[in-house]
Amino acid sequence: RYGYFGPSKPEVVQLMFCNVSGCLTDGRMFLSASGEEMVSINTKDTVGIRMLQKEGMKVILLTSSKDPVVQSLADKVAERTGCHVVKVGQEPQKDLEKTLKEEKLDWKDVAYMGTDEPDVHCLNLAGLSAVPADAPMVAVQASKYTCHTAGGLGAVREFAEHILLQKKKAKSQMTD
Amino acid sequence: RYGYFGPSKPEVVQLMFCNVSGCLTDGRMFLSASGEEMVSINTKDTVGIRMLQKEGMKVILLTSSKDPVVQSLADKVAERTGCHVVKVGQEPQKDLEKTLKEEKLDWKDVAYMGTDEPDVHCLNLAGLSAVPADAPMVAVQASKYTCHTAGGLGAVREFAEHILLQKKKAKSQMTD
Amino acid sequence: RYGYFGPSKPEVVQLMFCNVSGCLTDGRMFLSASGEEMVSINTKDTVGIRMLQKEGMKVILLTSSKDPVVQSLADKVAERTGCHVVKVGQEPQKDLEKTLKEEKLDWKDVAYMGTDEPDVHCLNLAGLSAVPADAPMVAVQASKYTCHTAGGLGAVREFAEHILLQKKKAKSQMTD
Amino acid sequence: RYGYFGPSKPEVVQLMFCNVSGCLTDGRMFLSASGEEMVSINTKDTVGIRMLQKEGMKVILLTSSKDPVVQSLADKVAERTGCHVVKVGQEPQKDLEKTLKEEKLDWKDVAYMGTDEPDVHCLNLAGLSAVPADAPMVAVQASKYTCHTAGGLGAVREFAEHILLQKKKAKSQMTD
Repeated sequence: RYGYFGPSKPEVVQLMFCNVSGCLTDGRMFLSASGEEMVSINTKDTVGIRMLQKEGMKVILLTSSKDPVVQSLADKVAERTGCHVVKVGQEPQKDLEKTLKEEKLDWKDVAYMGTDEPDVHCLNLAGLSAVPADAPMVAVQASKYTCHTAGGLGAVREFAEHILLQKKKAKSQMTD
Repeated sequence: RYGYFGPSKPEVVQLMFCNVSGCLTDGRMFLSASGEEMVSINTKDTVGIRMLQKEGMKVILLTSSKDPVVQSLADKVAERTGCHVVKVGQEPQKDLEKTLKEEKLDWKDVAYMGTDEPDVHCLNLAGLSAVPADAPMVAVQASKYTCHTAGGLGAVREFAEHILLQKKKAKSQMTD
Repeated sequence: RYGYFGPSKPEVVQLMFCNVSGCLTDGRMFLSASGEEMVSINTKDTVGIRMLQKEGMKVILLTSSKDPVVQSLADKVAERTGCHVVKVGQEPQKDLEKTLKEEKLDWKDVAYMGTDEPDVHCLNLAGLSAVPADAPMVAVQASKYTCHTAGGLGAVREFAEHILLQKKKAKSQMTD
Repeated sequence: RYGYFGPSKPEVVQLMFCNVSGCLTDGRMFLSASGEEMVSINTKDTVGIRMLQKEGMKVILLTSSKDPVVQSLADKVAERTGCHVVKVGQEPQKDLEKTLKEEKLDWKDVAYMGTDEPDVHCLNLAGLSAVPADAPMVAVQASKYTCHTAGGLGAVREFAEHILLQKKKAKSQMTD
């Protein structure tokens, strides 16, 4: 009944890539007259990340070279949640191929959460993929799941629950 | 007519426990490049807390060991409103049993406002309990009242009005 | 046709009192771990205040003794818009009677914008009065006009336009 | 078929003027007790600006002399996106005539995004013009396009996509 995949949990992702800007944050960057920069993250989303980690999943945060502040933010979120941070360029799929090789994973074993045009390839490639409710059309069309929640307001947590549900379903099918 | 409870005001809560993160705040944490952290609270909610205190109720704010910034915030809110702050872990009901003993109260004499999975036990145990409108389903299902207002936008005040109404109703029944 | 009021512009307010917290701001106060406090105001509302001033109206901002940060904010808004700031206690109508005497105005010559229980008396007394869309029921019921816009998002500007429209109407009736 | 305009791309704008306050920002200004000022911009909008630049369009940000903080913000956005900043007064069209002459452009070759009364002239004059969804009626009526998105939440990006679509349409008509 397992087919030729055997007991290796088909379609069950083991790693999640998650854009910081627009997924963990609401896309806003606060700029002060004195040069301070600020973004906000939501405790719902950090809870969501911990839910995935409890189930043995690895979560890797992605920052773009175009968002300097989000780098330092991602480092803080990483510190708090035990996530790694990977810096990606305009074509994230290329940067992430290296990570996938290190982890000995294929794109179908991966969940990807993105927000915009540069994420389209990864949204198409990943076994599970999602965008926040307020993502531009081009990203919505490429993703397998569209969250009902906007970025920075719980979209990561919603996707985490979606992933855990898919894992549960896949498990129950395997043990039939 | 009072039954065997006598004149001890049945079902009328005398103490409110209230999560800071997600109830008093909207769940957002602002992080700056320089390391500053910020949260926001709403004057509606601090008014709500004062409304309860005017009626002789005690309000205790709860912070989680996972949210360092919220600790310093809670201290400030505590300062302004005359609330105490209690630090709770992943199982708040255990930490709060001690407080209940000190106050010589039972869970049924207490109102509890929480937002997420760790709050489920307390939401079930408390005589009155509520979650903000944007709480995850698992917390909504455990709470006795679901606010129409989201966290950080007046949910605490809405629950305060709900509590005061319940107290009024219970009082008018006792004096029938 | 003017009645015994003569040409003194009946029902046309000449002064506006406006709560800072909840009217000019959205009621949020940002608190940082390092002790910094922050509120936000909206350019729509500062434009609204200038619209009133252009028509010869005086705008006085009200801060409550319970909101220390809003005092320094009000001073800044005052600086930018040429408004005065008056500090009021739990019963604003008493504090404002003094101002009304100085200005030789009656409550009916005044517009008042408030948000909550302490404003109820003034909302009832003022010739024109308003609350933001997200005000508690007790204040909504006392005010003559309920804005469609929430506090901090343009409610003051909406009320300013409402006042200017009433002034125009009153003027056109006088010149009939 | 080109008519007497020849191959000069009729109705295809080559320059965009964009208000910072209310278009790139949501109109909020954060003020702190210590004197710090802050605004927020959205990554969606900075992506939108880059989309226009990729297609060879020039984007010029407009700040008003009444908004000191927005000046330093605009300088930062300018730095990141390669935009120029022009300071305008209460009558932006006068200040921008000079820029148009330097660029050898007519108002019909220009896209303009504004939010309020001072923008009305430019919204009328520009070949393409837009306001965010939350703009006051006076600006909505003057603009050729009303965004579905509010200021600071992606309105600039929405207008950018609208402009690119118009350019595409005009191009395809020319090559018929």
